[in-house]
This record gives sequence, C-alpha cells and structure tokens, in this order.
Amino acid sequence: MTDHAAAGWLKVVGLGPGTEDWLTPEASRDLAGATDLIGYKPYVDRVPPGPQERHASDNRVELDRARHALSLAAAGRRVAVVSGGDPGIFAMAAAVFEALDDPAAPAEWHRVPLSVDPGISAMQAAAARAGAPLGHDFCAISLSDNLKPWEVVLKRLRLAAEADFVIALYNPISRARPWQLGAAFDALRDIRTPETPVILAQAVGRPDEALTVTSLGAVDPAQADMRTLALIGASHTRLVPRVGAQPWVYTPRSYKG
Amino acid sequence: MTDHAAAGWLKVVGLGPGTEDWLTPEASRDLAGATDLIGYKPYVDRVPPGPQERHASDNRVELDRARHALSLAAAGRRVAVVSGGDPGIFAMAAAVFEALDDPAAPAEWHRVPLSVDPGISAMQAAAARAGAPLGHDFCAISLSDNLKPWEVVLKRLRLAAEADFVIALYNPISRARPWQLGAAFDALRDIRTPETPVILAQAVGRPDEALTVTSLGAVDPAQADMRTLALIGASHTRLVPRVGAQPWVYTPRSYKG
Repeated sequence: MTDHAAAGWLKVVGLGPGTEDWLTPEASRDLAGATDLIGYKPYVDRVPPGPQERHASDNRVELDRARHALSLAAAGRRVAVVSGGDPGIFAMAAAVFEALDDPAAPAEWHRVPLSVDPGISAMQAAAARAGAPLGHDFCAISLSDNLKPWEVVLKRLRLAAEADFVIALYNPISRARPWQLGAAFDALRDIRTPETPVILAQAVGRPDEALTVTSLGAVDPAQADMRTLALIGASHTRLVPRVGAQPWVYTPRSYKG
Repeated sequence: MTDHAAAGWLKVVGLGPGTEDWLTPEASRDLAGATDLIGYKPYVDRVPPGPQERHASDNRVELDRARHALSLAAAGRRVAVVSGGDPGIFAMAAAVFEALDDPAAPAEWHRVPLSVDPGISAMQAAAARAGAPLGHDFCAISLSDNLKPWEVVLKRLRLAAEADFVIALYNPISRARPWQLGAAFDALRDIRTPETPVILAQAVGRPDEALTVTSLGAVDPAQADMRTLALIGASHTRLVPRVGAQPWVYTPRSYKG
C-alpha cells in the first residue's frame, strides 16, 4: 500500500430529501472534502459547484457505481457516494457493502476507510409535513419488485396491516411498475378500514413539494409518481382539522389494542 | 388575536442522536430563533448557550410539556420543543398533536403556526455505524409497555419476524422495564435462527458510543441500557469481516424469498 492509497476514503453520504435545510453538517463537510462524487445524476447535481470530479450515472447501476467508488478510493481518491435521503434506507449504502462482500472483491477494497453519513429519509420529511403519523410503531416497505418477488411484498403488506403498523411505502410507482401501488392499496383494504388515513407526499423538500391527505377508501394511485412517498395510518391514526389547510395527521403514542 | 400573539410559533425540533454533526441547519436556525426551549432536561442542555428561556422537565410529562408549549406560543412566544433523534419517531411530535387534538384545547392553540423539524433518528445512526442493516424492508417497534399492552408488542414482534423485516427496537430497557428486551429476543428466537445478526448500539453520536455486533443466539439483554437501540437482522442480513474491528452488518437490497 502506498502513502497515496492510504489517503483514500469512501463515504456514503445522505443528502436528505432535497433542501439544504436538511443536509447535515457531517454530510456538507464530507462532500467538500471529497475529490470525487459518484451517484445518480440528479443527486450529484444537488452538490454545490466545487472542484470535485463528478461521476454521474443513471439510477439502475448501483452495484457498478459502488465498485467504481471502491476502486477509486483504493487508488487514493477521497470518494463521496451521494444518495438522496438516508443512504442506509433503500439507497446506496447496501450496494456498497454488497460490492465489498463479493468474493471477487480485490483485497485493497477491504483496506479502504469506509463510513456512512446518515440523512433525513423521505418518510421523515413526509411525516414532518403531515404532522406526526410515525408517532407509533411503523414499518417501511419498498414496493419495487425488481429485487424481490411481488408475493413477498404482498405477504409483508398483509402482515404489517395485521400488526397494525403505520406503513411507509417507498418506490410506490414507476413507468415500469405502474400497477403495484394500486395492488398494495387493495391488499391493505382487505384488512384496514376505508377511513384509514393515507398521505401521499410528493417531492418533499423540493420547490414543487405537495402533500395529499386522503383515506384508504378514496386514494387514487394515479395521484402518486416516482417522487411520492405513501404513508398509511394505523387503526388509531387520527386527523386534526386545520383552518385553511389539509388536516394534520398523527398517530398517538398510546395504543389500547 | 393581538399582534404580539400573532408573532408566536411552535416548532418541534429534532436534535438528532447527539453530535452536532447530525443537527440539521433547519434545526439550528429554529433553536437560535426561539425565545423558549422546552423539553426533557438532557435535550435542553444540548442546545448551545443563548438568550432563550429554558423549561426543562423530566421524561415522563410529555403531554404537560406539549400543553405548556402551545400556551406559550399562543401568548406570542417563539417556542422550540426539543426532542432527541427525530421528534416524529417515538418522540415529542405526537404528544404535541395529542394536546392539540384534546376537545378542551383552547381555540387559540389551533391558530399557532406549528411545524416539525425532522432529525436523524437513533436507528439511522446505529445503522450507519454498523454498515447498512436497514437496506431492506424494516420495522420500528417501541418496547415500552407503558403506552400499549405487552401482548400487542409480542404480537407485532411475531408478525414482524414472520414478515422477515429487519427490526429496530426503541426503548428496549429501563429500570421500570427490566425483562421486556429478554422476552422480545425469546419471542424472535421462536421464528428466527440463532445466527440472525443483532446489533446493540449504545449512545451513538455521544462521546461514549459503543457498538456490539452479536447474534440472536448469543445476545445478552444485560448488554443493553436506556440509551441502547437494538437492531435484529432479516434472514438475509449478512456480515462482512473487517480487520481489527467488528464485522460490518448489511441487508442486501435483493431478496429471493
């Protein structure tokens, strides 16, 4: 190992959901200290201009991106892999460890100083705007069936509804997965009442953010897009009317059973 | 409503898990702009010295604290209710909305400009230090049975294990609740294998932080305390050996079922 290689590091940096208001000081410092930024192009573009070399890619090559980052860091570069939200939640951190866990991974990758900077995840931003829907036990499920069988998603939705968790749905819809969100709502309707509060939070933290408070009986999956996070309440999730705005949604800490 | 009252606001501010590295710019700004800080004493003490009036209380009076905050804000004060981690996750935000939702709540409380500043929650800090254990579907359960029957906790643990979620356990243990964490591990052992990775993350983000990577078969509840967050892996959660350190723990994005 040369001195040059010893100076390299890899940090998986969470940018939060969009606004710099939610970018942690740790993440800001690590982005500024990096020589290279690697990530999905819209995330790389969110990092303020600087001298860093930018390696932007599309959003379907996480593992390639992780390998590239490890190689650069092993060669002595200071690499920030950028991720929206929290890189540890349905994002880039797992991909980096998957790349490292490959038996074919070069030995020098294992010597790279590696760390993860957590960030505000989409469900937290959505919850903050809506009130406090995550105030009681909850779960987070990715609706993407690219990486797991749809039967697994359905089984988890049913068990989550039976457990009476508040449910956060990530990756609810895309051009390649147009029907899954509707199917998920249908599965939940078998167990939860039509009055169950549902929040569709779109692009929270971005200039065009939008929040829809509706119900399991009334929600239309067509109201969601790729940038939407869906939250489905528990049986005791409640609404508080607001003058001139959609109601607050919160889940009391106390649960009678 | 007087102009004085109109100037008041209430913000529920997440301080994150301890270090200022994880305090968002939004939270910093709102703490600096507040005239009054309200919260559990150790959290109030974490706010840098300033001219704000400090109202510190113990940790069992959330609803009183919420009512006090709403009253002060309705009287024109700029009130920050401070909370560790994310106030929306097992913390103060739900208590504020519970206070507001009380039919006896004064009408002026409903006119208070109210917002929530999300923060990094304990499970995210723990996950970042451990690797990427929350990389796949997960749930978060509070083990406190002060606010829900223990049977509900047990049922949720069993359903979560059956759903093969990664499980984050908040409030695992306290002087008043010494046996619940052991009972929770026992319940999970009925469904998950002894090799299932378990992480005990203590005081992450504080100078005395400590991380223990163990397994469901080997974990000893006595290793946990009030400041511990426990993470239990899914069936496909994996370890990656590290030279001179405990192994990384990550949950691959892909799930074969």
